[in-house]
Amino acid sequence: MSKTQNQVRQSSLAHVVNELCKSEHGMLSWLARGGRLLPSRDQVVEAVEALRSVLYPGYFGVSEMTEENMRFHVGATLDRVLAALQEQIKRGLCFVCNHDSGPECPDCLERAAVITKEFLDRLPKIQHVLATDVQAAYLGDPAATSTDETIFCYPGILAVTYYRLAHELCTLGVPLIPRIITEHAHSLTGIDIHPGASIGERFFIDHGTGVVIGETCIIGRNVRIYQGVTLGAKSFPLDEHGNPIKGIERHPIVEDEVVIYSGATILGRVTIGRRSVIGGNVWITRDIPPGSTVTTSLS
Amino acid sequence: MSKTQNQVRQSSLAHVVNELCKSEHGMLSWLARGGRLLPSRDQVVEAVEALRSVLYPGYFGVSEMTEENMRFHVGATLDRVLAALQEQIKRGLCFVCNHDSGPECPDCLERAAVITKEFLDRLPKIQHVLATDVQAAYLGDPAATSTDETIFCYPGILAVTYYRLAHELCTLGVPLIPRIITEHAHSLTGIDIHPGASIGERFFIDHGTGVVIGETCIIGRNVRIYQGVTLGAKSFPLDEHGNPIKGIERHPIVEDEVVIYSGATILGRVTIGRRSVIGGNVWITRDIPPGSTVTTSLS
Amino acid sequence: MSKTQNQVRQSSLAHVVNELCKSEHGMLSWLARGGRLLPSRDQVVEAVEALRSVLYPGYFGVSEMTEENMRFHVGATLDRVLAALQEQIKRGLCFVCNHDSGPECPDCLERAAVITKEFLDRLPKIQHVLATDVQAAYLGDPAATSTDETIFCYPGILAVTYYRLAHELCTLGVPLIPRIITEHAHSLTGIDIHPGASIGERFFIDHGTGVVIGETCIIGRNVRIYQGVTLGAKSFPLDEHGNPIKGIERHPIVEDEVVIYSGATILGRVTIGRRSVIGGNVWITRDIPPGSTVTTSLS
Amino acid sequence: MSKTQNQVRQSSLAHVVNELCKSEHGMLSWLARGGRLLPSRDQVVEAVEALRSVLYPGYFGVSEMTEENMRFHVGATLDRVLAALQEQIKRGLCFVCNHDSGPECPDCLERAAVITKEFLDRLPKIQHVLATDVQAAYLGDPAATSTDETIFCYPGILAVTYYRLAHELCTLGVPLIPRIITEHAHSLTGIDIHPGASIGERFFIDHGTGVVIGETCIIGRNVRIYQGVTLGAKSFPLDEHGNPIKGIERHPIVEDEVVIYSGATILGRVTIGRRSVIGGNVWITRDIPPGSTVTTSLS
Amino acid sequence: MSKTQNQVRQSSLAHVVNELCKSEHGMLSWLARGGRLLPSRDQVVEAVEALRSVLYPGYFGVSEMTEENMRFHVGATLDRVLAALQEQIKRGLCFVCNHDSGPECPDCLERAAVITKEFLDRLPKIQHVLATDVQAAYLGDPAATSTDETIFCYPGILAVTYYRLAHELCTLGVPLIPRIITEHAHSLTGIDIHPGASIGERFFIDHGTGVVIGETCIIGRNVRIYQGVTLGAKSFPLDEHGNPIKGIERHPIVEDEVVIYSGATILGRVTIGRRSVIGGNVWITRDIPPGSTVTTSLS
Amino acid sequence: MSKTQNQVRQSSLAHVVNELCKSEHGMLSWLARGGRLLPSRDQVVEAVEALRSVLYPGYFGVSEMTEENMRFHVGATLDRVLAALQEQIKRGLCFVCNHDSGPECPDCLERAAVITKEFLDRLPKIQHVLATDVQAAYLGDPAATSTDETIFCYPGILAVTYYRLAHELCTLGVPLIPRIITEHAHSLTGIDIHPGASIGERFFIDHGTGVVIGETCIIGRNVRIYQGVTLGAKSFPLDEHGNPIKGIERHPIVEDEVVIYSGATILGRVTIGRRSVIGGNVWITRDIPPGSTVTTSLS
Repeated sequence: MSKTQNQVRQSSLAHVVNELCKSEHGMLSWLARGGRLLPSRDQVVEAVEALRSVLYPGYFGVSEMTEENMRFHVGATLDRVLAALQEQIKRGLCFVCNHDSGPECPDCLERAAVITKEFLDRLPKIQHVLATDVQAAYLGDPAATSTDETIFCYPGILAVTYYRLAHELCTLGVPLIPRIITEHAHSLTGIDIHPGASIGERFFIDHGTGVVIGETCIIGRNVRIYQGVTLGAKSFPLDEHGNPIKGIERHPIVEDEVVIYSGATILGRVTIGRRSVIGGNVWITRDIPPGSTVTTSLS
Repeated sequence: MSKTQNQVRQSSLAHVVNELCKSEHGMLSWLARGGRLLPSRDQVVEAVEALRSVLYPGYFGVSEMTEENMRFHVGATLDRVLAALQEQIKRGLCFVCNHDSGPECPDCLERAAVITKEFLDRLPKIQHVLATDVQAAYLGDPAATSTDETIFCYPGILAVTYYRLAHELCTLGVPLIPRIITEHAHSLTGIDIHPGASIGERFFIDHGTGVVIGETCIIGRNVRIYQGVTLGAKSFPLDEHGNPIKGIERHPIVEDEVVIYSGATILGRVTIGRRSVIGGNVWITRDIPPGSTVTTSLS
Repeated sequence: MSKTQNQVRQSSLAHVVNELCKSEHGMLSWLARGGRLLPSRDQVVEAVEALRSVLYPGYFGVSEMTEENMRFHVGATLDRVLAALQEQIKRGLCFVCNHDSGPECPDCLERAAVITKEFLDRLPKIQHVLATDVQAAYLGDPAATSTDETIFCYPGILAVTYYRLAHELCTLGVPLIPRIITEHAHSLTGIDIHPGASIGERFFIDHGTGVVIGETCIIGRNVRIYQGVTLGAKSFPLDEHGNPIKGIERHPIVEDEVVIYSGATILGRVTIGRRSVIGGNVWITRDIPPGSTVTTSLS
Repeated sequence: MSKTQNQVRQSSLAHVVNELCKSEHGMLSWLARGGRLLPSRDQVVEAVEALRSVLYPGYFGVSEMTEENMRFHVGATLDRVLAALQEQIKRGLCFVCNHDSGPECPDCLERAAVITKEFLDRLPKIQHVLATDVQAAYLGDPAATSTDETIFCYPGILAVTYYRLAHELCTLGVPLIPRIITEHAHSLTGIDIHPGASIGERFFIDHGTGVVIGETCIIGRNVRIYQGVTLGAKSFPLDEHGNPIKGIERHPIVEDEVVIYSGATILGRVTIGRRSVIGGNVWITRDIPPGSTVTTSLS
Repeated sequence: MSKTQNQVRQSSLAHVVNELCKSEHGMLSWLARGGRLLPSRDQVVEAVEALRSVLYPGYFGVSEMTEENMRFHVGATLDRVLAALQEQIKRGLCFVCNHDSGPECPDCLERAAVITKEFLDRLPKIQHVLATDVQAAYLGDPAATSTDETIFCYPGILAVTYYRLAHELCTLGVPLIPRIITEHAHSLTGIDIHPGASIGERFFIDHGTGVVIGETCIIGRNVRIYQGVTLGAKSFPLDEHGNPIKGIERHPIVEDEVVIYSGATILGRVTIGRRSVIGGNVWITRDIPPGSTVTTSLS
Repeated sequence: MSKTQNQVRQSSLAHVVNELCKSEHGMLSWLARGGRLLPSRDQVVEAVEALRSVLYPGYFGVSEMTEENMRFHVGATLDRVLAALQEQIKRGLCFVCNHDSGPECPDCLERAAVITKEFLDRLPKIQHVLATDVQAAYLGDPAATSTDETIFCYPGILAVTYYRLAHELCTLGVPLIPRIITEHAHSLTGIDIHPGASIGERFFIDHGTGVVIGETCIIGRNVRIYQGVTLGAKSFPLDEHGNPIKGIERHPIVEDEVVIYSGATILGRVTIGRRSVIGGNVWITRDIPPGSTVTTSLS
């Protein structure tokens, strides 16, 4: 019997597999880590979605939530999610560690346990801040009919929730995982908030698609921004090898109670003063004094 | 034997669970509804995806569709989806009802059944309008090679399909559910159409990411818009308590056969007259007479 | 016993099913293909996600990847994915073929097998180019801490990976499937690259939401672009029936080492000369000479 | 184009569907119940498997069980399972009720709620009896290395666990559901215990395949039986229409501390006296006095 | 960094894989079939479970079955299941065919299509016979409270349903698949009926564990048998090479209205005459005249 | 609003949870292990099913197996399954270990790695023996049409496959896991082989339901047994506390080329001599010399 077309195709299979598994072109840099496991994006995403269900008990996950059974469901979910998260935090730590303590790396495991415990302890505080964000969303959009609606439907609430969780992990020194979390929110909402940014309470992003908030941004309280707003870097200095210098403060400071309308672009380490209103499509690369209203000549 | 690190972590568990389940910070407002179930986002999304498969029979879901088996598959899917949708509509109605008829709320159940029946009866009409949208997509994009391609791939078609379903539920008085549907489309496509907006047939959005169409927009027939277009509100009046007044007509009217290019922003209750062409990145806050062409000075 | 509300609803079911299955309004154009199967979007998406896991071995999918087991996992995944992809390629070919060889269409099956074999052979080359894109992402963003982070998290890497796979299928003459692939990336990232576009190595898109790259674009090597950039068509000629003429070169040429900042819009068959820098929100519809810096008067 | 073979097949489809949906041959007797839902075997099975995980906390389901998190997991699982079980109990009640209160049948719903509450209250008692069964299994089999092993692996423990749950529902007056539960255990273990049988504590079935314990059996404490043992009815009287008369006491009484070896068959309302030993393959249809040893002449 | 224990283990991996994939010890006899696909046990099982749901509409699968939606669900399920079954029948045919028509084997494909069509046409007849079996189960067991209970719970009904489907495929000349079906029933119920056996209507097996009914059995109408009954072969002749001669009639004939009690063993091509009663644990290797009652001396 | 019936039920929830989590009745003996994880039955079952697919490449799992892709699929599956199995072996070891080395127990982890490596190395030998069992099944049953059919369908092959894997783990000193494996086979087939038994090559069990083979059985080569056969213990001595003494040789020795027909029971440490034939339903508690034929007087 002659060979099938599948069999013909498979004549190339072994060769192509060998090519794809060659380390010379740099796709296998993880091999240098000697068997330490890489984080799993799917596990991180599952964990953070479960965390959302305990921060907003009754809105996601179990549908028959009551005052009586709430603690059981929140406790069981939280216990499960923390075990999964601790494993991912450990992998994140091992991703950058220099420990010479073998592939299982007990040092990172122990640090992951400490961080996870601390993260758990901070969850009530995160929930309190999110409650102010929900309130801000309800007040900031005439189309919102209740705070529940904003929790259920508003992409801005989702993005800020994921950001606040990721930011807390960031301040606890967890590498990589926070960025995976915020990029998942970016994929779902089109809102791209770097977990390193600092954002005060009562923060509201409406519609949100195309919003970019850079790593070293500092945003005050009660700020409202709309779709397409960029809080970015103007340019970045290179080192002697032509590589970008990492970690320089290069994004805007937005003070309390500022409103930034859709499509506005603010670049560089500039300050938008308290209570300012930045109009749509405006392009700003300089400080704006408190109480200003900035609009384009076209509006 | 000493305690594991998991056990150490769990020493905080009970305390944090108690904190997260406190109602004082307003995250548990649903408790006031006395055991009535909240809508399930996952159920709504599953229902609307199944509805898409019956509106475009053969394109999604069952792959071996023929003239002979089509009615069986469409009928079985539709029956299943309507049972699920009715339950969600009932939860949506209970979300805002003031009935004092106990936690099962037979009043809302009955109204949900009537609405679901009416929604079912309107599906053929929705399909007819969507057929005109598909035709518009094919004619509106030189890269489209067939109407089938637009059904399979075009985010604009997906967003408009979900919008038309959500809008019909909106006009039938269903709370919350329509918004969950359009926000799901927003997440998939970056196109944010409020279900309250009114949009005529032969509507085409190309590329689409960043499009925002507000709650009180009125869009005529044969309109074409591109990515990044905002049809938004200019500002919104507050009541005596500083809260936004809900329900005011505050978004644009776009008349028949208008084209709006990428990045254009049109704000407030202004009218873009019939057959006008709005250029890219233009910022408009006033009426535009029929037949106008508006471009920025930069193009 | 009286009828339930479900039964009342179902009284309309048969009628609505008949309406939805009528072919007159053009929703059933696939019926003309005489039983040939349509592509399955889910199958294509699953295949391309598996391909990503073999192009970046160890980052996605199997988590305990080592030098020893890598070839087994890559080989098993590749074998499985190619069988699935060949079936979808065959359906894509049948989607447009005029073969009179019966519903199973052995001609398309054979061509699909040849294309799949050729596509397999090209995967190492695709991987090599992607390795340059990953390097470009790491160098192009001061916030990137390692190349691994860009592979894990950066939407730009995901969009370019899917584009390069889709583009290769495009050059092999596969209809429809490439577009399904890039639209899936569009949904996940907000980055809309037409598979027909031609893009050189070391390509980096940062943040990315709202980027549109049209069908006939030609982009050189080492180009970097930011969120909200449109490389689009200015307008398109209609034929004598008022339909757009398909396949005309109508999108920009971007030469090597160009940088285009966020929100810039470049329309029509214009050339952006080598090493030029295009500022944010700029609107361009004409050629730009090499080495230019273009900014708006507002910045 | 000619029809595919699938299409030829489908020419019979509509006709066969009509035949299968005819009610005349008695397959659609549920139609007489006017829309009341039938129990779902899958839901019942899922519920009873979850119940097993709370009766033996830590052995099935969640693997990282500790003293700290146990209550959360047991509580969350129990809450979920009871909601599902109540729905199935309600359907079981409606299966036989004559209420004229419409298709939703609030009477059965209320009774289901009362029964579910009572069943919940009895779970600790069921757990206590099961603990004696586990102890009996460990002591009764020289191959058992720990009580944990009997919980993990012994089909006898599984069958008795499901029986004790089903029996409790039986005594609470739930129709149909108890039988679904014991038949699921029968499928998994080959042990067929009717939920109506009465069985004392410290009961152990070793190996178990082929064991049959009939509806009206009464089994004392500390009884041990082996594979292939039948405790059945000898014959059953018919009524005037030739139908079997339901509910007559027709199965054996087995007193405390009896052992019955493999393949023994005991039929009819006979009594096996306390501390008797019944040898393998013995056939018994008469009373056996206490302390007897019965063997076949062949052994 | 030193190697992990996983890496040490993997040092054997390639060697063991090579050993396992050697064809010399006869585990790879399918290689001789030149790329033709083997049947998939999972697909067959899924198909036959779906068939059960259409033969007993409303009892398994869709729970909200009504007179109005029944035809849609039955039709959709049947269409789906037949497509899957046809593929498996084709693989079964190719399993034994000698066609030299290449690996896709269009001859077997065409025959599979004809068989599937014929099998579909016979389903109503199968349903009619099953309705008599259900009636027999209800009348044959005093513990049965309704015919619905026997459909839901009785392993005998499940085993006979799967047997009747498998037997019909058997008479249509399908290899392998019928045996996969009856062995699945064997696994679920402990009842092992060879698909080649011939069984009349109104057949009832009670409890059933351990029942064996051989390939060439002929069973009349209205027969009732209990657990542990064997209808087997006495011995089988060998050919000149010492291999068993296949296909000889070697199992019992059981005439109409016979009852066989638990544990009875009947071996060889003997005839149990009409209306006979065979007692428990009896061992029979000779003809029994009509109307006999056979019991062991022990009972 | 009044409370729902769910809420009433939940008033008992907290109390019942507390009762179920009390350790005094002995259900929580694992608590004494200080946080060490119990084995997961589901994980063990999944692993052993995957092992079956690599021992019989092409029959289970991947359906498009060819000579070219076989090694990739076998290698990838084997790598995955061994990682999972090693974890379960480690838990099994910790189940009985007395190490004082903390809850992670590196001693057991290391031993699990060594055992898993050794088990891997033995797989080819296991496959060779299974090939003789398959051959024996084909030759031993006139109804078998090919060796492939026995691999696909015969419960005897499944039970022996799982037994041989479990037995190898048993001889490597793994606690608990082997028993979980054979009890899974018991559930699927009704064949209960203790993993401690020793069984020679070319072993065939036909039909199999109800077969029991005890812990200390020794079975020679080319033995064939039928359904309902028990190779059990006659009785077992108790120690001074009335507990059974574990580990005594108490089951039969069956020499080469013995055949044991259905329902036969052989008890105690007796020897069935080479080439003997034991008839159906025979009861044996003494040595049988080689070449004997034993039948009941009833046959």
